[in-house]
This record gives sequence, structure tokens and C-alpha cells, in this order.
Amino acid sequence: MSDYPPISEHLDDVESARTEGRRKMDWALQHMPILNELRDQFEAEKPLDGQVIGMAMHVEAKTANLVELLALGGAEVAITGCNPLSTHDDVSAALDAHENITSYAVRGVDEDEYYDAIESVVSHEPTITVDDGMDMVFAIHEDYPELIDTIVGGAEETTTGVHRLRAMDEDGALEYPVFAVNDTPMKRLFDNVHGTGESSLANIAMTTNVSFASKNVVVAGYGYCGKGVAKKASGQNANVIVTEVEPRRALEAHMEGYDVMPMNEAAKVGDIFVTTTGNRDIVTEKDFEVMKDGAILSNAGHFDIEIDLEALSDLAVDEYDARDGVRAYEMDDGRKLNVLAEGRLVNLASPIALGHPIEVMDQSFGVQAVCVRELVENADAYDAGVHDVPDELDVEVAEIKLAAEGVEIDALTDEQREYMGSWSHGT
Amino acid sequence: MSDYPPISEHLDDVESARTEGRRKMDWALQHMPILNELRDQFEAEKPLDGQVIGMAMHVEAKTANLVELLALGGAEVAITGCNPLSTHDDVSAALDAHENITSYAVRGVDEDEYYDAIESVVSHEPTITVDDGMDMVFAIHEDYPELIDTIVGGAEETTTGVHRLRAMDEDGALEYPVFAVNDTPMKRLFDNVHGTGESSLANIAMTTNVSFASKNVVVAGYGYCGKGVAKKASGQNANVIVTEVEPRRALEAHMEGYDVMPMNEAAKVGDIFVTTTGNRDIVTEKDFEVMKDGAILSNAGHFDIEIDLEALSDLAVDEYDARDGVRAYEMDDGRKLNVLAEGRLVNLASPIALGHPIEVMDQSFGVQAVCVRELVENADAYDAGVHDVPDELDVEVAEIKLAAEGVEIDALTDEQREYMGSWSHGT
Amino acid sequence: MSDYPPISEHLDDVESARTEGRRKMDWALQHMPILNELRDQFEAEKPLDGQVIGMAMHVEAKTANLVELLALGGAEVAITGCNPLSTHDDVSAALDAHENITSYAVRGVDEDEYYDAIESVVSHEPTITVDDGMDMVFAIHEDYPELIDTIVGGAEETTTGVHRLRAMDEDGALEYPVFAVNDTPMKRLFDNVHGTGESSLANIAMTTNVSFASKNVVVAGYGYCGKGVAKKASGQNANVIVTEVEPRRALEAHMEGYDVMPMNEAAKVGDIFVTTTGNRDIVTEKDFEVMKDGAILSNAGHFDIEIDLEALSDLAVDEYDARDGVRAYEMDDGRKLNVLAEGRLVNLASPIALGHPIEVMDQSFGVQAVCVRELVENADAYDAGVHDVPDELDVEVAEIKLAAEGVEIDALTDEQREYMGSWSHGT
Amino acid sequence: MSDYPPISEHLDDVESARTEGRRKMDWALQHMPILNELRDQFEAEKPLDGQVIGMAMHVEAKTANLVELLALGGAEVAITGCNPLSTHDDVSAALDAHENITSYAVRGVDEDEYYDAIESVVSHEPTITVDDGMDMVFAIHEDYPELIDTIVGGAEETTTGVHRLRAMDEDGALEYPVFAVNDTPMKRLFDNVHGTGESSLANIAMTTNVSFASKNVVVAGYGYCGKGVAKKASGQNANVIVTEVEPRRALEAHMEGYDVMPMNEAAKVGDIFVTTTGNRDIVTEKDFEVMKDGAILSNAGHFDIEIDLEALSDLAVDEYDARDGVRAYEMDDGRKLNVLAEGRLVNLASPIALGHPIEVMDQSFGVQAVCVRELVENADAYDAGVHDVPDELDVEVAEIKLAAEGVEIDALTDEQREYMGSWSHGT
Repeated sequence: MSDYPPISEHLDDVESARTEGRRKMDWALQHMPILNELRDQFEAEKPLDGQVIGMAMHVEAKTANLVELLALGGAEVAITGCNPLSTHDDVSAALDAHENITSYAVRGVDEDEYYDAIESVVSHEPTITVDDGMDMVFAIHEDYPELIDTIVGGAEETTTGVHRLRAMDEDGALEYPVFAVNDTPMKRLFDNVHGTGESSLANIAMTTNVSFASKNVVVAGYGYCGKGVAKKASGQNANVIVTEVEPRRALEAHMEGYDVMPMNEAAKVGDIFVTTTGNRDIVTEKDFEVMKDGAILSNAGHFDIEIDLEALSDLAVDEYDARDGVRAYEMDDGRKLNVLAEGRLVNLASPIALGHPIEVMDQSFGVQAVCVRELVENADAYDAGVHDVPDELDVEVAEIKLAAEGVEIDALTDEQREYMGSWSHGT
Repeated sequence: MSDYPPISEHLDDVESARTEGRRKMDWALQHMPILNELRDQFEAEKPLDGQVIGMAMHVEAKTANLVELLALGGAEVAITGCNPLSTHDDVSAALDAHENITSYAVRGVDEDEYYDAIESVVSHEPTITVDDGMDMVFAIHEDYPELIDTIVGGAEETTTGVHRLRAMDEDGALEYPVFAVNDTPMKRLFDNVHGTGESSLANIAMTTNVSFASKNVVVAGYGYCGKGVAKKASGQNANVIVTEVEPRRALEAHMEGYDVMPMNEAAKVGDIFVTTTGNRDIVTEKDFEVMKDGAILSNAGHFDIEIDLEALSDLAVDEYDARDGVRAYEMDDGRKLNVLAEGRLVNLASPIALGHPIEVMDQSFGVQAVCVRELVENADAYDAGVHDVPDELDVEVAEIKLAAEGVEIDALTDEQREYMGSWSHGT
Repeated sequence: MSDYPPISEHLDDVESARTEGRRKMDWALQHMPILNELRDQFEAEKPLDGQVIGMAMHVEAKTANLVELLALGGAEVAITGCNPLSTHDDVSAALDAHENITSYAVRGVDEDEYYDAIESVVSHEPTITVDDGMDMVFAIHEDYPELIDTIVGGAEETTTGVHRLRAMDEDGALEYPVFAVNDTPMKRLFDNVHGTGESSLANIAMTTNVSFASKNVVVAGYGYCGKGVAKKASGQNANVIVTEVEPRRALEAHMEGYDVMPMNEAAKVGDIFVTTTGNRDIVTEKDFEVMKDGAILSNAGHFDIEIDLEALSDLAVDEYDARDGVRAYEMDDGRKLNVLAEGRLVNLASPIALGHPIEVMDQSFGVQAVCVRELVENADAYDAGVHDVPDELDVEVAEIKLAAEGVEIDALTDEQREYMGSWSHGT
Repeated sequence: MSDYPPISEHLDDVESARTEGRRKMDWALQHMPILNELRDQFEAEKPLDGQVIGMAMHVEAKTANLVELLALGGAEVAITGCNPLSTHDDVSAALDAHENITSYAVRGVDEDEYYDAIESVVSHEPTITVDDGMDMVFAIHEDYPELIDTIVGGAEETTTGVHRLRAMDEDGALEYPVFAVNDTPMKRLFDNVHGTGESSLANIAMTTNVSFASKNVVVAGYGYCGKGVAKKASGQNANVIVTEVEPRRALEAHMEGYDVMPMNEAAKVGDIFVTTTGNRDIVTEKDFEVMKDGAILSNAGHFDIEIDLEALSDLAVDEYDARDGVRAYEMDDGRKLNVLAEGRLVNLASPIALGHPIEVMDQSFGVQAVCVRELVENADAYDAGVHDVPDELDVEVAEIKLAAEGVEIDALTDEQREYMGSWSHGT
């Protein structure tokens, strides 16, 4: 087992980091009505008493409020990052200061350290896993299968993670229940559409200082993330071009009024590229060859494999940092292609990245929290495998949010409910 | 059995009606690339040879091209309307002129005639039913159960119809397979969002001559139809207010930037109301009591029960036609509330109604056609009950459409396909 | 002088026409808060006593309420149409029934009758002219210069009319003051942008039954009308293409995210064309030659010279009415090009046309009414020539409208007013 | 005269600052097609030979490319900042390294130093002034009137500066010609609408980590900047509320579909406030008293007087930095109100500020450059006072931009030109 130490042992000035991290957490908490409401509940009822939660997530202020919520609910929590560049050390330190929380997340770790930190989390012998990319689930299944017996279940945050878990499930290889938090309406509609959309574009704007008005913005993939990026770019007067492989999604984008074309055509005219597919090799050598001088490339999917950086680097006669967070690749014909945030998630890994907007994560983490509570309270109800979040949990979170925003809605009358359930009414 | 005669026996000048109806069908066909493509296929391959298709649909130019396509595919077709006000007699006559088609649809029939016409269709002993509101399925199950044995299956066009069929199915009362055409992505995303959205608003504008800019447009229900009406109204600079009963849909509307409130609050400020719920009693007495003078009420759901016209009529001290298609109800305090198209579907039943846009119906009817073909070709594959349209059929139609619009898209590489199916890749 | 008789002598059943026309006027008046407010003022104060107003405008329900307002203000009014196809005979009859109004407007007159009707209006010896296209001003200057001495002034509604008046003024040929109602912010921002935009598209939709989603909509001209059409088409998910001759307007459209290109390029890809330039020869032979089969052509400018119908007719091997209001021109290669409303204003001259939305005309006519009042009250303040509407009149109308809509706004404090007028404040 | 030294004497490591500054300038220049084109012209033709240009502008990468362009055109340039917080020292150092440029701009100067730096610029005895807020014009008129005789003219960038210059002109106090660069269509439509709109919101998002979806965003003022902020916020799914004092602008916002209300009403519901008026006392004590806990206040106007920070500070029981660039004011009832960038221009003065987008400034600075050239080439054509930028200069820049973006447009034919100038055509 790894003896990779918690963040506090990595820092020179732990105290000031903790103060700063707590300040960041406090700011976020101000804009998280759902977690605020759940804090009251969890603190009073301690639904997670006796549980050990192992987490691999982006460790920044918002996530930290989820982590603290889980600890306030009675759990012991061990956490590490799910991306070497997304950890905020000060927030990690603030968490680590909590008596029920140990944080191993450190920004800028190398690959060995990354996996060592996961091992350190595993050494706490979690009964519940909470993932953003299934690293924790994968580590346990691969290297610590002996823990599986005592694991109640898990929750996974991302599209990509859920996709991989489903594949694992189909292979019969997933040995405890995991909630596909990503697949709830709450997650996809708000986090993916509004969260990824707004924050990716704000990061691009504030890293490059270019504007979107009149730009050809190429959005690769028209899933929920792609829809969000396209919608928000269009809302800033960009000319949106969508690339897709699924005919119905392509048609949906076309009907929305966007241009739809193959990537190699889009590559010729695009000013700014944002990949959102969750797949690999989306922008490749043949695309680099036809791109315009000054093209800006970014990724809002999960892994850094959507833009083929290896091929780009091979093509380049020179590489250098054009700005913080902007890597310029100079082609032999003098064209410069600019990659943001090393091709990692532009809204999480750029130098000024703040991640998803606070309120959006509030919703997503609200679902995480009630899912963890559900795993404890109704453990027997779930077999090994990927589970959709039960509708009533998702609805519970929506209701908390609406109430917090002061939005009232109608309720079905008995007559309406009966009508919706009947089938013998005439024209 | 009914001896209600075909349309041709109802008209004084059948020939000129046929000419006019054919002219309407030709205009529509010009803008229906999917049906054009399928005509070539169906005419060549005659996949429906030997089948009798009983239909209850809105009989106008676009539907007529579906009907003719089915006849060209080898079927004998008998059809009647699914709404007493939506039939175009000239189109009905043009269809009836086809040697393999008998049309009983006549505009303005009373309730007895409406059901007599359905009986006349049933008398052809259909082997396949195609419905827009499940009238045909219902009539057969209720009154002609002896036909069920020879029925291959059916297809249903609308949200409301599918809803009722599912209820029937749950009761174990649905005795042959029916494709829920409404539930395909093709249908919901294009027909409901773009079709209902655009055509409802165009009908309201051209019936009332009011504009949408700055108006408070109250959209009841935030399903696909509601989303379409809200989106298109917002795109014409209306201030959109959404009412809902489902917390997550309400939250989705709220996150989109719309106002969300209970109907009785919306009633106080709304200028134009559009109901899209598929449920009853959406706008009721307590709402009429607080509405502004001059409020305009319309329905884009399925049945005329969303606005409680009986209660409105009871409240009114006077009623009269303010314009063609606008019924004014004068309250005792002098306020006038204006109901469009008698509370029936505003885009189908208003005096100038042309129904859904042509291209949108082209997509929807493309799915209908391949579903009917599927019922014949793979009859054994489907048990009694409601069936989702198989993905490959839906995708087939999307591909035809994209090709017709000149839109090319990417295809997954083998490496990408493998990646999407795998789960063992690291960070 | 002409003895062309008033509308009432042209109709078989005058009484029922009057009833119908009055019903239309009443509906409009319900949605005209500004005119309602001004009716109270004008009826009480009779500011127009003793004046004779000669008008050439689109005679339909909304204009009729302006006409009646002027009569209620004490004037004798004589009116005729400003477009042979835009008159509603029933509304014309309802106006003619008013003791102080004579209406010569009849739908479908030929060129001789059109000018005879203008002469009949002139025979009333107007002291004020109100134009929509400067026909009245032009007729008086050309043929009845003896009337000019007693004319107090005029008001002109349209961009095109004002343009021509300014040209006339520059030639020293305009011999009495005319308010350029068109050039007020009230007129351009609301009437041109929202009015022309919404109503042109609604007419196109309801004449053709096509949808805008995903369509290439070519907007010729990016003035206020063009901006309105582009904005509203984009709001219905069209892909907007703009053509322009002024580089800054072209750049403005480009920055908005629209495609900008020469007409002959746009012609190759456009599905629906809307001309808004006020100029001639916008869509010409070389464009027709490259258009797609099924292209739809319409005009939202002033005259029917934007689409070169003569050239189109010469190119065509066949012409026929494809639908009411749609003239199909068949090219020798089989392509059909479809012209709406004979190339006249699509929102005024199509068969189902209702003209500009009511509320928008309410604003425009509110300005007309206070301008006419101003001509009487401050006749000496205005020399012969084109005059901008005085700011205070325009603001008066805006304030009436805001009050009617229940919108309150801030007022400058003395400190703020002083600050805005000063220049000696530091950083 | 001041002996305030150039930036290079303020820095410890001038060389690395210059390298970094040049790197920033290079990035910007890549996205400035207009300045690139003009560099070729100016370098070849040296139109500014013999001129001394005194500038007070935001000294960052984009402006620096204008400064260098002027120097390449033959001028000697002296420059300082126009805002104590907007200078990038490295860019200032890079400029100062140029043999024809002296830069006195240093970030974070106090008031005395600010004015000393202006004096140092003046000591170069400029023949042309280029301002962003009229500091240079004001200093010369107030303190160095002896320079006026040899001054050819000036150019002013901002709305606020032009407003103050016009007031000065009306007082007869402006003694040389100044081009109102701000008032060109190029400047207002692109810089104000797109530039201020996009960059203000991106700065707010990246300073606070909140999202705009569903937020009540209060935009004070509906001039060009306000329109831009409202449009872009709406495009990110905010619910936009506009406050105004001018009835027609208020009505324009209302017709666009926005909520319009007095600030004191907006204060009760607003989540994020952006002032854009150019006036003082826009958000004041009575507004702070009713704001929601967590409200975010920012300014996108010119000076830091739109939000009454003094009153806010007086009301507060505690003040602290909640995040970089966010000052929290705690009210006695526990509510926290958060002011961004000290109430200064949020897109220029926030800690991560990059200013207006590059391309937008490219357009604005293109106009500046041709205006300076015009002052030299046609000095005699301009009297003392504020001058609109001649149309042909503005059009020249638009044409350069369109060509650079590959956008082609139509040209008027002779027939069209004649038609537009004529007035005798009939209906």
C-alpha cells in the first residue's frame, strides 16, 4: 500500500493555505442553496454514520463543500484528485484540516504520484466510492478486490465514467452497485448544458482575449456538453459549426440552424475548436494540415485524447507558450495552431480555471449527496451494476432548488392525475 | 357496419376539389425530400402488397403524401379524419380518386358522423392501423375485436395517443403491436419542438394580428411541444412564462431563463396563453377570473380540454366571434377573453390553419412509412403492446434527410468504436 | 377633377361590409393603448377642428383607428389606399360611414382607378397630408400646386417615402413641411424591426406552410427592416444570410454571426429570400439562373421592384399559381421558383395578409397623430421641407406606451443631470 | 514640468518584462487583421513623420499595437495610462523599448503619480493627442494652454470622454479639433456592443465562478454598452432586467423582451448588477438596503462613480476581500454585497482582466489610426471642436476588416444609385 501523504505534508505554509482554501469554500457555499439545505439535514440526522467514503474528484471549492457535507453527515472521507491539474492545493488543505477528512490531492503530480494518492485513499478501506471518471472504482476492482465485500456502493459523476462503467457492467466485471449520477436529468441538463457551456467559453475568452462574435466556433459532438457549448457560443454571436457521427444528433444540430459538416471540412474554416465527445482522435493530423493560422483548439470532454497532441507535436517545427495556458505549435508553412490547457478540460485545467459554475455543481452535488445517503439507507435494494438514480431522489433535489430560488409550481389535481392514467376518453 | 360514404359522395363538384387537392399535395411533396426518396423505394419494391391500412389522421396535403406513399407501396388504404375540423375536403377528394385509396374524411362532421366514418374505415378490415390520437386502435378494440386476429400491427403519431396506448397496454388491454412513432427522437425533436412551436405561433399571429415582441406568453407544460413554443416565442422577443407540475421540467425552464410560476399567477399577467400539456383543466375558472382584458387563449396540446371552455362560457355575460377563429367571452366586469380555434389545436383547427410545417411532417411521416414497412416485413418480431420505433429505422430516416439536405457527417473509426466500448483506459 | 366615388358606391352589400369592418377596427383598437389614450385627449380637445386631412395609406383595421382618431379630433378626413392590393373593403366601408370621413380606397383597382382615387381625395382640398409612400404629396406638387398655399403640412410613414421626400427637398421642390415619421426611433425600432420582421415571416409561413428551422433565409439589406427579418428568422432557427452594399452594415451583420455574401452567391444556397432594401433590381436574372428548385422569393421593402419579375417571367417556360399567393415560375431545366404576393410587400399584399402587428402600428400611428396635432398647433415653426419629428413628441408617445404597459422607469436626479452636462470631473 | 520617469526606470527586471510584454503584443497582433494591414501602409508611407503624439490610454497588448503602428508611421509617441489599474507593466516596458516611444504607464500609481505621468507625456510637446477619457485634452487645456497652438488635433476613444468633450465644446472651451472616435458606427456597434458585452460577462464569470443561467442580471443603462451586456447575458440564459431614464430606450428594452423597472425595484431581485450609464449614483444607499444576500455588483461604464461605494462602505459593519477582485461588504443584518474590481471597469480593472477582446479593439484602433493620419494630412479641414469621424474613414476600416475576414459584398449598380437618388417613381 502507498504511503503517499496527505496534502498538508506537501505544503510549506499549511495554515495560510487552509485559510485561503476555507475562504474559497465559503464563497462557493454562499451560492449553493441545495448543499446548504442538505447540511442542515445531514448534520441533524447523521445518515452516513460509520461509513468510509473514498473519493477521486476535482478538488476545488465546490467539491469541497460536498466532501464536507458527507463528513458532516457522519462519514469518514478520504479524497484525491481525478486529474493531475485540477486540484487547488489550498482547498485540499482546508479539507484535510477537517477531523473526518483526509485529502491526498496535490496539484501537478506525476503519473506515479497520481496512482499513489489513489492507493492512499484506498488504504482507508472505503465502504462507498464517489468518482469523477471512475478511477476509484477501477483501482478497487483491479488492485484491491478484497475490499469489494464491504463496499455498499458508489456514485459516478461524469458521462465518460458512466460510459466506461456500463461497458464494465456488460462484461460482468462491475461487482458493486454504482449510481450513474451523470445520467440524471439534473446532471445532464444543468451541469453539462449550462455548466460546461458557460465555463468552457469563459475560460477560452479569458485565456485568449478573443471574442466569439462572428467567429467560426467548431463544436465536436452534439451530446449534452456539445449542445451547451453550441448554445452559449451562439448566444455570443458566434457562427457555430457542429461535427457529429450520429445521424439524429447531426440532424438535431442542423435543425437548430447550425452548420453541420465533417471535422476535416470544419478544420478549414474554424477559428475556435471545442471538443466534447468523450472519444479519442477527434482532431487529428489531417485536420491540423488544413487549419487556419491562429486557430485555437480546446477540449471540454473528459480526457486529453480528443485532440491528437502527439501528431500535432510531430508536425510542428517549433512549440512554445504563447500565453499562460496557450501552447503554440508552429507548422512548417508558418501557421500557428494554439492548444489551450494542454488539451485537457479547458474549464478545469486552464491556468485561471475555476471549473463549473458554483450553482450548477450545487445541483450535481446535491444529487451525489442524496445518492450516497440512499446507498446507506437502502443498500439491499441495489444489485452490483450501474444504476440510474431513482427518480424520487432527483426530484427531491429539484424541489429543494426551486424552493431555494423562490419558484412555485402547480400540482396535478386528482382529476388530472386520473386523466393522465386513463385511455378511454374520446375526441 | 356504417354505410357512411366516401368524401366524393359528399361534394357537389368533385372534379374541381380533386384538382385543388392534388395541387396542394404537389406543393407539399416539393418540400418532402424523405417521402420523395421513399416513393422511389416503395414503388419499386411494393413492400406493402396485400395489406389493408386503416387510418385516422388529419387529412390535409402532407398526410396525403404519406397515404399515397403507402398505396404506392402496394397497400389498400382507407382513411378518415382524427379531428372534425382538420380535414381539407379537396385533399380528401384527391386521395379518394386514387384506385387503392378510399377517404371518408369530411370537414365539419358531427359526432355521429365522425364515428360513422371510423366504422366505414373499419369495414375495409384493416391489417394495419395508422393513428393520430388512437381512434382507430380504440374503435377496433372496443367494437370490432374480431378483426384483431388478422391485424399485423399499428403506428401512433401523437404524444397523447401514445400516452393512452401505454395506459391501455398496462391494463393488458392492447392486443396487437403498435409503434409509438411519437416517442422517436425524430418525432419529438423536430415535429414537436420545431413544428408545433413555429406553426402554433404563426397561426396565432395570423389569426389575431398581434405581435409577440414584449408580450407575456404563458406556455403551459414544458415537454417537447412546450419547449418548442417557448423557444420560438422567445425568439420573437416575447417574455416567456412557463407553468409546470414536474419539478425537474420546471427547473429546466427556470435555468433556461424563463419565468416559472403557477398558472393562477401567470393568469394575472399573461397576454397570450398556449397550453401544451396533453392534460385537462389547465386554464380554469379561477384563472379566467384574474386575467387581463384582451387576453388571448390557445391550445397546442391534443384535445380541446386544456382550456375549460364550459366554465368560461358559464362566466361570460356575452359571447361572439371577434374575428374569424377568435371567440370573445365578455366577463361581467367588461373584460374580454379571446379563445382561438374553439380551444382545439390552434395550428390545425384555426380557420387559416395549414398544420405543421411541411418538412417537419416529412420527417415524421418518413418514420411512419418505414414503421409500416417493418410491421409487414418483421411481423413476428413484435408482441402485442406498445413498441418503441427500432433505432435503426429512426436512423435510416435521419440519414435520408441529411443526404437530401446535402449535409455530410463523420463516421466513427474502428479505434474510436473500440475506445467507446472499452473501459480500461487510464487518465 | 376625378369623380371616382367612395367605397360605399362600389359595394353590393354596404351594411354588412360596414359591420365587418367595424368589428375589425374594434379588435385592433383593443390592442392599441396609445391610440386609446389619444382618443380621450383628441375627443375632449378637438385640436384638429377646421382641418381637412388627405390621406393615402394602407386602409385596414389599424390605420382606420388612426383615421377615426383624426376625425374625432375635429378634422374632415378623405382617404385612399397607397397600394392597390392592401385595402380591406369592409374597413374602408366602415370608415366611409363616419360623418367626417370619406374613403375612396377599394381593393384591386387598376392604375387609372388608383390615381383617380387620389384625385378624389385631393378634391376635398386637404390642409394636411398623411402619406405612406408620398403619393399624396407627389400628386399635389405635380398636379394641384394651387392647393399648396393652404396646406399646413404633412406626415410620411415609410422609409422609402421619406427617402424620396428628402431627394425632392434637396432639389428645392418640396413646398410645405413634412414630418419624417419614419425616421423617429419609435418608428424604426419598433415598426421596422419588430413589425416588419414578425409579420413578414408569419405571412411567409402561413402562405407556404414551410418552416424556418434549418432553412437558409437570405435577407437582402441590413437596415432596420432587414435587421428585424434577420433577427426573427434566426429566432426561429433559420440560418440567416445577409446581402448588403454598405460595408459597415455588412460588417454589423457579420459580427452578429450571420453569413454575409453577394446576392449571386446567396442565390445558390437560399431556400427563402426576403428583400428589404427599398431599392430596385435586388434579385435579378443572374440570380434566378442559379437558384435551387423550390426557392421562395418575397419582398418586405416598399415597391415591387426588388425582385425583377419581368426578367423572371421572360426566363420561365411556364407560370401558374401554386397556392393562393404563390406564383410558380418554371425554368427550362424544370426548377420552380416561387414568388409570394406578386413581389409586393409580403406582409401587406399576401392573400391572408393582416399587415403589421397591431401594437406596432399603435406606436407608429401615435406618432402620426401627435405630428398632425403639432402641424396645427405650431404651424409657423416649420418651414417647407422634410422635418424630423421633434424629440418631445416621440418621447410623449413612448411615455404613453410605457404607462399603458405598466412599466415604470427611473428619472435623472439633479446631480446626475448636472454631471452629464459637466466636463471637469477627474478620473 | 514633471520628471516622472518612464516605466523602464520603475522595474527591477526590465528585460524580462519587455520579453513578456512583446509576447503579449505578438499574440494580440495575430488577431488584429486591420492593424496588420495598416502597418504595411504606415511603414511604407510614413504619414506621421514629424508628429509627436501624446496618449493617455489603457496600456495593454492591444493598445500597444496601435502605439507601435503610430510610431511605425513616423511619429514620436509618449504615452501614459488612463486608469491607475489598467496598465500592464510588461507591455508598457515593451513599448518603452521602442526608439520612438516613451511609456510612463505604471500599474497601481496613486493620484499624484497619475497626474505626474500625464505631465511627463505633455513635456514631449505633443502635436496630436489620443485619449481614452480625455485626460490628455483636459490636462493641456487646463495646465499647458501654450501647447495648443502647435497641436494639429486629437482623437477620443470613449463615450464618456466624447460626452465631456461635447460639453466643453458647447462652452466654447475646446481649442483644437478632436475626432469623436467613439461615435462612429464601427466603435459603438462593435466595441461597445460586442466588446464590452462579452468581456464584462467573462470577467464576472471568471472572478466569481457563478453562472448566468437563470440569474437576474440587472443592466443599468440601455445605450450601446448596456445593449451589449443585456444581449450577451440573455444569450447565456440570464433573465435580463434593464433600468433606464430615457423613455424610448426603456421602451426599446421592453420591446426586446427584457424586464424594465426602476433600480430600486430591480435591487430587490437582482443577482448580478452591471452599470453601463456613464453617469453617477446609479446604485445607491436605498438600493443596497433592499438587495439580496450575495448580490454581485459591477461597473462596465467609465468611472467608478456608478456604484456609490462610499455609501456602501458607510452602511457596512465589515469589509473584506472575499476573492481576488471581490470586495465583500457585510450589512448589519448579515447580508453580504459583493463589489467587483472596486467598482471600476470590470473588464479592465479586475485582477484577471484582459480588457476588450482583441478583434474588437482592432477595429476601434483601426479607426484611431486613420483618424490620426487624417489630422496630419487634412489638418486645415477641421476647426477647433468635436468632429465626427468622416464617413469615408470609417468605411475604409470596415472594408479592410471585411476583406481580411474573406467577406465579399455587393456594390450598387448605376441604376440602383440613380434610383436611390430619385423621387419621381410611381407605385
